[in-house]
Amino acid sequence: MQNFSIAIHGGAGTLVKGMMTPEKEIQYKNALRTALHAGYSVLANNGTALDAVEASVKSLEDCHLFNAGKGSVFSSAGTHEMDASIMDGKTTKAGAVSLITGIKNPVQLARDVMDKSEHVFMAGNGAMEFAKVNGYKLEDPSYFYDEFRFNQWQEIKDSDSFQLDHAKKDSKFGTVGAVACDSEGNIAAATSTGGMTNKKFGRVGDSPMIGAGTYANNKTCAISCTGSGEFFIRGIVAYDVACLIEHKNYSLEKSTHEVINHRLLKIGGDGGLIAVNSKGEIAMSFNTEGMYRASKDSNGNEEVLIYR
Amino acid sequence: MQNFSIAIHGGAGTLVKGMMTPEKEIQYKNALRTALHAGYSVLANNGTALDAVEASVKSLEDCHLFNAGKGSVFSSAGTHEMDASIMDGKTTKAGAVSLITGIKNPVQLARDVMDKSEHVFMAGNGAMEFAKVNGYKLEDPSYFYDEFRFNQWQEIKDSDSFQLDHAKKDSKFGTVGAVACDSEGNIAAATSTGGMTNKKFGRVGDSPMIGAGTYANNKTCAISCTGSGEFFIRGIVAYDVACLIEHKNYSLEKSTHEVINHRLLKIGGDGGLIAVNSKGEIAMSFNTEGMYRASKDSNGNEEVLIYR
Repeated sequence: MQNFSIAIHGGAGTLVKGMMTPEKEIQYKNALRTALHAGYSVLANNGTALDAVEASVKSLEDCHLFNAGKGSVFSSAGTHEMDASIMDGKTTKAGAVSLITGIKNPVQLARDVMDKSEHVFMAGNGAMEFAKVNGYKLEDPSYFYDEFRFNQWQEIKDSDSFQLDHAKKDSKFGTVGAVACDSEGNIAAATSTGGMTNKKFGRVGDSPMIGAGTYANNKTCAISCTGSGEFFIRGIVAYDVACLIEHKNYSLEKSTHEVINHRLLKIGGDGGLIAVNSKGEIAMSFNTEGMYRASKDSNGNEEVLIYR
Repeated sequence: MQNFSIAIHGGAGTLVKGMMTPEKEIQYKNALRTALHAGYSVLANNGTALDAVEASVKSLEDCHLFNAGKGSVFSSAGTHEMDASIMDGKTTKAGAVSLITGIKNPVQLARDVMDKSEHVFMAGNGAMEFAKVNGYKLEDPSYFYDEFRFNQWQEIKDSDSFQLDHAKKDSKFGTVGAVACDSEGNIAAATSTGGMTNKKFGRVGDSPMIGAGTYANNKTCAISCTGSGEFFIRGIVAYDVACLIEHKNYSLEKSTHEVINHRLLKIGGDGGLIAVNSKGEIAMSFNTEGMYRASKDSNGNEEVLIYR
């Protein structure tokens, strides 16, 4: 049996060090560890990479600390508009949803788009109808209510500004994601987000975009991104990493470093990504102060980190 | 002054030869020629590639023959849900809209997203609000009414099936697009579509997805795709062409051929694309029976074609 592994992220940017209390740091790390183990235990029980990334992302979506699912920020309309995507590296099948509301686990709906429809990407009211047809119940808005995020929204809601995430003073990129390699060498990636505080106009970021925020292909890598979405879209960041591996024979580490610290920076993009390949190797790159992240492999290595 | 050029498409697949009458063929070719010249005259007057592709796509959107703008097919709700995107190869800035209704020229709204917002991609009700704020008036549904497309929808609307385009018996991919290189060597691409007849669930295809249906970067190429959108998304087809040029030093011709006739076919995708580079070279590839297409360059070459 080959090496299996998983990596997760809870967004790049992170709170500036002065705003992060020791208590908060422990909370974040515990939440990351819980999500990591949710996916890892799938792999340890011979589950698929696809099921593992879904399990980890669901766990992150269920935690109020991260900007996805339950912890989603408020849009300008005072609602929670969420995006998610998932891709299976074995088949290169993919599913994505955008601008959905009231769904507890957007990543599960993305998975259902992949498994139960002929499409890859559904958005807005139509995606909500697909959820209804597939028996999803809608959570009450109170499920998504969080006092910190509500106050954050109140502060800027009458302005034209928007924030990428839940920190007040610095830019943060509220996205969660997971990548995994299972014991058969199949890989997968998933990403989920609650968007930007006070966002308007049905803005779609990179998270639901296959190739930009999420990508998986056994022959190259599985990637989940987090950052300034517009730049990740223009750089087609997730697929960019895969192409350097495929065409230039770069290692996973070199490819992710090249994309995040050179190609993305060059167009002005901030953020990071997590990556695995079918050998179970892991890479985590970011050009921000930090990235909430964790990884674990079948050789017994485990990391839970926030700053560099 | 360097060579300038433009290429446009009105979808791949094409009517099976038996269904195409000589009269229809003339109509299609005239419409393609009109759209070609709309963009070419921008270039000939020292306009930008960006303005040229917008002008050509608008012309195609204004023609009832193509599945975009005025000619958009009926969705399952009996409405016209349109998608469009545009990308500037000089700056790699981009704009895209999805699931919009009542807008005469979706490509113009995509351009406004690029020029007048901090975002790349807007969808659904939010994108409509952006249109409203920017002074767009909504066309009456009758503007988009076409008897042929209405009957086509009536035939399948009570079933679960959907069609990619306006032909009845064969698969067609209703998308329009343009790519151009201007006299300064800047390139651009734009794509617009009315989606699939009877489509449900807010399906988003590749047309509004930067990297999948549209891509432009002076250092590689400008691309507009048309085909079975789900496969173009999974293959990140437009950017795939660019990566072969950048990383493997392929010519424009070789790269487009490799992607359409090998890499896309391998995952089961049908369709084609048009491409230019900053030298003004043009390539048009498709793996279907035909693709409505036309091209013209400053050396006096002009082509208007449907079949191989």
